[in-house]
Amino acid sequence: MGKTYKAAMLVIGNEILSGRTQDKNINYLANKLGEQGISFVEVRIVPDIEEKIVEALKSLKEQVDYVFTSGGIGPTHDDITSECVAKACGVAFGTHPEAFEILEAHYGKEEFNAPRRKMAMTPQGAELIPNPVSAAPGFIIDNIYVMAGVPRIMQAMVDHVVPSLAGGALVKSENVPCFYPESKIAEGLGDIQKKFPDVDIGSYPYFKDGKTGVNVVLRSSNEESLTKAKEDVEDMISSI
Amino acid sequence: MGKTYKAAMLVIGNEILSGRTQDKNINYLANKLGEQGISFVEVRIVPDIEEKIVEALKSLKEQVDYVFTSGGIGPTHDDITSECVAKACGVAFGTHPEAFEILEAHYGKEEFNAPRRKMAMTPQGAELIPNPVSAAPGFIIDNIYVMAGVPRIMQAMVDHVVPSLAGGALVKSENVPCFYPESKIAEGLGDIQKKFPDVDIGSYPYFKDGKTGVNVVLRSSNEESLTKAKEDVEDMISSI
Repeated sequence: MGKTYKAAMLVIGNEILSGRTQDKNINYLANKLGEQGISFVEVRIVPDIEEKIVEALKSLKEQVDYVFTSGGIGPTHDDITSECVAKACGVAFGTHPEAFEILEAHYGKEEFNAPRRKMAMTPQGAELIPNPVSAAPGFIIDNIYVMAGVPRIMQAMVDHVVPSLAGGALVKSENVPCFYPESKIAEGLGDIQKKFPDVDIGSYPYFKDGKTGVNVVLRSSNEESLTKAKEDVEDMISSI
Repeated sequence: MGKTYKAAMLVIGNEILSGRTQDKNINYLANKLGEQGISFVEVRIVPDIEEKIVEALKSLKEQVDYVFTSGGIGPTHDDITSECVAKACGVAFGTHPEAFEILEAHYGKEEFNAPRRKMAMTPQGAELIPNPVSAAPGFIIDNIYVMAGVPRIMQAMVDHVVPSLAGGALVKSENVPCFYPESKIAEGLGDIQKKFPDVDIGSYPYFKDGKTGVNVVLRSSNEESLTKAKEDVEDMISSI
């Protein structure tokens, strides 16, 4: 067994907490981390409040290998993420020369006003993450990956960063659909879970168009265990 | 100014963190809390791991008036939320007589097996939340509201619980669409934000079909401030 690499995400999002916007970034990152063999262990969503952002960053960066943030790196007064990351990492906050060049070239010298120059500021020592949509870069400092909140930009940044991260063995998954209610298969599933400790067995009931059923989802990086556990689940269900 | 009532949510969701499922419950709760004048200040998503659930519950229940959980109250081995809530509240965990009766009546004495009886267990002193879809109730203990993860059931439980909670003044919102890039209006917006500290002004850029724009969203429980700030934003944009 190799090391398990863990990731967490901090969504800086008043618009998610107010209900105005349905988040799409969590699911996108979850799938990309899965493809890289990185275990996604926690998400927090907090408002644009410095104390909350800094506290969450400090807590998460100690617990996992990679912390991803989304949101709050634009030019307006409510974009405070970059400065909060500097505070959480205990480093100075200032203009990043390369980001300044990129943005000045993008907007042109005359149009490169104060709010745009704000987007060239990062914690000292940050490495940039390119933004192919609107130029203003994200950045990496320590184990924190700071990305935009706009889904198209966030996704491009994830695509740029995640494939090059160190990850563990790929987790494969199998789905066994079942048309009994969950409580009919619960004991059998519990026994199979005990028999295969390296397979993560979850059961997800649904109630749709008057029908009841369960999707039994098995996940493991051990393909042999996964196959055997899946066969056991299928046998158990067909024996009911 | 009255008291500000705050809420947080803990999503117990391996299926969200694995990327298999796109969460819908956060947005539903966010909107219902907004209608009740309750400020939604944090969401955490954690896996089905006792230590993570208990730690998050202990932290959140101290910080807010209402903690909502979703997921992990079914009959299978991976459903550990109820027991974790008992641990976080420091109370015993056992069969809730009323929940036992409801479930026994629902399934019938003969079919009321061990996994189904597990769903009748709550922290001692819990008050039940009815489940109109599949009978197994949620519950309330201290300031924690424990709900199912299946969206249809979760939504019914939210609809049952939230309208009777104490809330503050309703937050109204206004949206001012703008077809300039965010960095053109950033300085003006910052000035208006300073002028109206009781209005929460957010700006949300979008990049769609080759077009760039910003939605400026103003939120406040003070209707007079909201109207004036909106007029200022409109004037500022039309003067560019």
